[in-house]
Amino acid sequence: MERKLKVGILGATGTVGQKFIILLQNHPWFEITALAASSESAGKTYEKAVAGRWKQEVDIPANVRKMTVLECDPAKFNSHGRVRIAGASRGEGARFGCCDFVFSGLDASAAGEIEKSFAAAGYPVISNAKNFRMDADVPLLVPEVNADHAAIIPFQQKRRNWKGFIVTNPNCVVVPLAMALKPIHQKYGVSKVMVTSMQAVSGAGYPGVASLDILDNIIPYISGEEPKVETEPLKLLGEMKKNAFRFAKIKISAQCNRVPTKDGHFLTVAFATKKPAKVGDIKKLIKKFKGEPQKMKLPSAPKRPLVYLEDDFRPQVRFDRDREGGMAVSIGRLREDPVLGFKMVVLGHNTIRGAAGAAILNAELLYKKGHLRTK
Amino acid sequence: MERKLKVGILGATGTVGQKFIILLQNHPWFEITALAASSESAGKTYEKAVAGRWKQEVDIPANVRKMTVLECDPAKFNSHGRVRIAGASRGEGARFGCCDFVFSGLDASAAGEIEKSFAAAGYPVISNAKNFRMDADVPLLVPEVNADHAAIIPFQQKRRNWKGFIVTNPNCVVVPLAMALKPIHQKYGVSKVMVTSMQAVSGAGYPGVASLDILDNIIPYISGEEPKVETEPLKLLGEMKKNAFRFAKIKISAQCNRVPTKDGHFLTVAFATKKPAKVGDIKKLIKKFKGEPQKMKLPSAPKRPLVYLEDDFRPQVRFDRDREGGMAVSIGRLREDPVLGFKMVVLGHNTIRGAAGAAILNAELLYKKGHLRTK
Amino acid sequence: MERKLKVGILGATGTVGQKFIILLQNHPWFEITALAASSESAGKTYEKAVAGRWKQEVDIPANVRKMTVLECDPAKFNSHGRVRIAGASRGEGARFGCCDFVFSGLDASAAGEIEKSFAAAGYPVISNAKNFRMDADVPLLVPEVNADHAAIIPFQQKRRNWKGFIVTNPNCVVVPLAMALKPIHQKYGVSKVMVTSMQAVSGAGYPGVASLDILDNIIPYISGEEPKVETEPLKLLGEMKKNAFRFAKIKISAQCNRVPTKDGHFLTVAFATKKPAKVGDIKKLIKKFKGEPQKMKLPSAPKRPLVYLEDDFRPQVRFDRDREGGMAVSIGRLREDPVLGFKMVVLGHNTIRGAAGAAILNAELLYKKGHLRTK
Amino acid sequence: MERKLKVGILGATGTVGQKFIILLQNHPWFEITALAASSESAGKTYEKAVAGRWKQEVDIPANVRKMTVLECDPAKFNSHGRVRIAGASRGEGARFGCCDFVFSGLDASAAGEIEKSFAAAGYPVISNAKNFRMDADVPLLVPEVNADHAAIIPFQQKRRNWKGFIVTNPNCVVVPLAMALKPIHQKYGVSKVMVTSMQAVSGAGYPGVASLDILDNIIPYISGEEPKVETEPLKLLGEMKKNAFRFAKIKISAQCNRVPTKDGHFLTVAFATKKPAKVGDIKKLIKKFKGEPQKMKLPSAPKRPLVYLEDDFRPQVRFDRDREGGMAVSIGRLREDPVLGFKMVVLGHNTIRGAAGAAILNAELLYKKGHLRTK
Repeated sequence: MERKLKVGILGATGTVGQKFIILLQNHPWFEITALAASSESAGKTYEKAVAGRWKQEVDIPANVRKMTVLECDPAKFNSHGRVRIAGASRGEGARFGCCDFVFSGLDASAAGEIEKSFAAAGYPVISNAKNFRMDADVPLLVPEVNADHAAIIPFQQKRRNWKGFIVTNPNCVVVPLAMALKPIHQKYGVSKVMVTSMQAVSGAGYPGVASLDILDNIIPYISGEEPKVETEPLKLLGEMKKNAFRFAKIKISAQCNRVPTKDGHFLTVAFATKKPAKVGDIKKLIKKFKGEPQKMKLPSAPKRPLVYLEDDFRPQVRFDRDREGGMAVSIGRLREDPVLGFKMVVLGHNTIRGAAGAAILNAELLYKKGHLRTK
Repeated sequence: MERKLKVGILGATGTVGQKFIILLQNHPWFEITALAASSESAGKTYEKAVAGRWKQEVDIPANVRKMTVLECDPAKFNSHGRVRIAGASRGEGARFGCCDFVFSGLDASAAGEIEKSFAAAGYPVISNAKNFRMDADVPLLVPEVNADHAAIIPFQQKRRNWKGFIVTNPNCVVVPLAMALKPIHQKYGVSKVMVTSMQAVSGAGYPGVASLDILDNIIPYISGEEPKVETEPLKLLGEMKKNAFRFAKIKISAQCNRVPTKDGHFLTVAFATKKPAKVGDIKKLIKKFKGEPQKMKLPSAPKRPLVYLEDDFRPQVRFDRDREGGMAVSIGRLREDPVLGFKMVVLGHNTIRGAAGAAILNAELLYKKGHLRTK
Repeated sequence: MERKLKVGILGATGTVGQKFIILLQNHPWFEITALAASSESAGKTYEKAVAGRWKQEVDIPANVRKMTVLECDPAKFNSHGRVRIAGASRGEGARFGCCDFVFSGLDASAAGEIEKSFAAAGYPVISNAKNFRMDADVPLLVPEVNADHAAIIPFQQKRRNWKGFIVTNPNCVVVPLAMALKPIHQKYGVSKVMVTSMQAVSGAGYPGVASLDILDNIIPYISGEEPKVETEPLKLLGEMKKNAFRFAKIKISAQCNRVPTKDGHFLTVAFATKKPAKVGDIKKLIKKFKGEPQKMKLPSAPKRPLVYLEDDFRPQVRFDRDREGGMAVSIGRLREDPVLGFKMVVLGHNTIRGAAGAAILNAELLYKKGHLRTK
Repeated sequence: MERKLKVGILGATGTVGQKFIILLQNHPWFEITALAASSESAGKTYEKAVAGRWKQEVDIPANVRKMTVLECDPAKFNSHGRVRIAGASRGEGARFGCCDFVFSGLDASAAGEIEKSFAAAGYPVISNAKNFRMDADVPLLVPEVNADHAAIIPFQQKRRNWKGFIVTNPNCVVVPLAMALKPIHQKYGVSKVMVTSMQAVSGAGYPGVASLDILDNIIPYISGEEPKVETEPLKLLGEMKKNAFRFAKIKISAQCNRVPTKDGHFLTVAFATKKPAKVGDIKKLIKKFKGEPQKMKLPSAPKRPLVYLEDDFRPQVRFDRDREGGMAVSIGRLREDPVLGFKMVVLGHNTIRGAAGAAILNAELLYKKGHLRTK
């Protein structure tokens, strides 16, 4: 690798944006050279722009503290030479401005137009937003699940007449759900899934959930969440053939709830398989499961993407969410279910494996596959 | 009513026992005349026996504070004339000692032998313990669900050669579940149920769940809970014919979890019906549902046993668990389910509707039906 | 009493306003006839105006649910005949429009101008806002502490040329602090006070404290709080002579913190007395303390304004905040202090005794003293 | 360093013992070769002995998982050759058995006799227990505060006729308090201190605080805590001369409370100085403070033992407790105080800086000073 890829972060002051910054510290392949946010933040140092909203348990890293925040506008990125950005020399990156690709932690309300404009301007956009996830030419990607879907990128570029492209990761509940189901679906075919989620408050961003709403409480509804959980896995677990996605034929029912935990989305999952299966065999599949990131040894890939815990009392949110830096999904209590056949519990770290970490792993996969490169 | 029925409480120092004491304050039909607990507590005033373990948000009521705690032994109850008990005159109650019937808030480890000994000695035992719930001649009773099951009592007495008897209420998850399903099962026949519970810490008694185990955490297992949730509703929703219980033919799958809330068990429930049904019709059934306690106007009966909330964000644990003194069950989000047909959320107060309040309502029903009387 | 006094609530959709509504249900002297809020809410039914923001553990009471919300403008109140308000007949209240006096639960940002305009228009304003608390002609009133300060009202009316007037209650930390110090100051003279507060999230209103900010956390700063705690007690514990307040000569130091509790402000308090005192004697003073509300038997007055708990482990926030409907202050652990002489812990319910309940008790006192009357 | 020092852990299954195990992973100077606990645990593998009680957010480290737990008996340690212990070869350590020194995370109820027996048997004992802290010949040590007190060890050995010795660290509130006061006391002389603590539940061990006792609650009393906080700092901040400790002449008042946080003891601290001082100067002292561990570059020493945060809203428990691996103490809000002169807030990680980490830093200091060595 001659030099690290330069990355920009769209929505850098939000909670997902902050997580990108934390996770990209000391990344072996990527380095942050641009931070972008709303026009209110633009022009300020990152430190000032994020003041009062930095909600990570570590301080703002020194390398971004004094970086000037840009607007989320590719034109501004291109002309960044006139904006002082640490580590970017003037002559460099003539074409794309200040970075080789961008991560997007933008809210759905802003992501649509902005991400499109960056892709059109030639930037690969690795997005956590929901806006393009279900588009017919956009990969919805979890590298352990459907790494091959990245192959649609040239088709997307051609169809949309973009030099850049957009790749997305799924909803924070969908990532652990799809990963847990992957080896089972692959071998036995999953036909029905019932999932009840208990979701941590960090999933709602900041300020997000008011403390008066969640102390000693459970909220039975998260706006827009259940439809995502019922549809995104169908694309992930489906096939890509001839530049088209064929959705998996699974009936999914989701019941999504907010609970008073800080991080970690916890799921009870019952499922039916098309072919007959046994608890012991499914456990074995889970335990030995490896995906592309493990084979490729991607820097952010967990050694074991699925960690099966035999103790009936595990996984537990506080004790298991941080496995492998929050990139592993924990599974437990797999047993027979009198209604659907099988049931289990699944836990994933929502802001790491379910958001920023998911996007970074996507970028690593895309780099290895040649879709991202230094200019 | 010539005089109030005198009641004893077995396991009076435990958390269920404490709730009995609170809920029986100013009861129009019952008055506490005996408190019994382990031999360690016996002989002490209640105040001293419960010191450091009284975990109610109100003070110990004045009427029990100085009452001497008895052993859980019917012989001691019979000879109580020599023990000073407030409000019980010496000549009275010659046969049964200090009370007309007893509530049992005993732990399962103690309840078996003790409850049997009281029933054999002639005391009606209204129990919250699990020990006899599934016995072939013991009513497992929720008055809104299966009030007619009380009719097996004479058969029980004859078969066991008891002058007293045992009546039980179900597990704290089962009460709201069975109540919510009752009107639906009655009209359409429920064939399959999948329930995921999020259970409050008060369900585990005191000291119960360690704070280190539950702060910012979820625990995916509660010992012995799931089998109860999968079987007890079958008896409740079944029929009693010719002194035998015919269980309802429903497949129930339960996934029980402990969450960081204080009171209130919250359930996501998906279900299939035998006859075709519509969301709107089921809602109407729930809204207009009344059971025996409502018809009989039992003192502890909620006016509306099932409260349907149209707001997608309700019910919420902290805001809805106390409806009608904690005796109403709250339901919301009834909607179609792609896997089983329907889904909804259900909330019940675990230590009131799910334990002490359930037993008291049972006693009120039994009194009205003539099974309990002053001697 | 020929008829109940008609009351309006300014800021009726906020958390203090909501508490006014709850506490005034079934009030023997007062009835709500007007609800006012921002222009955004005006014209809507209360139910619609407060949708998504009603954060009480009981439902919106039926009597206000359909009431039309007014603007916080005395002109609108006067002409209310054209606005449909439940229970107010057209001919009635010709002079002041829809109520005899108003409670203000307004935020400080709005309270200044609005409260002044109501007082100028002839309405007595019983306010919870901070704006006028320290004004030289405005009573800062806790009936158990300085009921006599109400006597400045005519002076205020004359000086400001108002037909109405403004009376305030102190900050939610100051109420329990001043009440706890009152009997001690009266007898021994308090010279120095050090108070550390642990304040519940409900004190910050809604949405108030973000859950991400307070789960498993403590925040060492509450904007503007410490100066209030260091000055308001001086007025409360001072004297009123010749229409002027002489502040008590006490040095108070406050350290205010936000902690993850829902309701109840908990204080550690160390203090020095001018005259020598003994722990036992101070305890006695606290235990026998009665103020004007107790003597006058005001409807909202707690029987025991100060409850001293001998158990070292009490008071505790969840177990003691609701004593006497949240109107009693709990005190414990009074003991010698090597630095200042004495120390103790003090607990008060912040949204009841420290806000809405405080204002209602003020209104009751003012009614009994003749400052409030039907027109 | 020819080889790492071999260390044993007394009380290895408790929460402090678990923290020793975590913090000693990859320690450059020390390696665990013996784990000891109650006779109930002895003979089992560590994994089995600690089953259901391992309450760390990471898994049991591989190096101790299969280690056989010993009894807390020096005779058993000496004869360990017959017990299979990973990494200890038979011939080695003939004299002292299986380790060069021991850490003690024992409860006070057990620590007295056991620690004495190990010291008598020749083992240096680095203890977190309270039993010997205030003994006239035992160093109560915080390396940044009173590293010179270690010099009393030979006197202790002579006086007690021990080949080993005992060194202790203070209570978990005292460590951050004494560290924060150290530079101020050194320069200005501290005369009075008032501290209110808000202590996390992990301080009570496991199962420790029941969730029913702390959810939405504050407890105003921790048995035995306040006397420790009022006396231990006097020894720490005092002088050692001629093998005797002269206590600092400071009046300390402590008010200790349990709050619903997981880790991190948070303190409000007001203090008076003997010599006049200014806020700005004290801040500078705090910011530039370095102790012996920093000068000696001890492996567990935080680079900045005291971190001063200028933001009024900091330190916060969840965001600052983990600074420098939990070994730094965070300070904020230093300002004038009308009663004592100055006030501030102080935060320390109770199970790291306040317990296991404190003992490890003590051991590192003692090694550097020559009190610990390989045999």
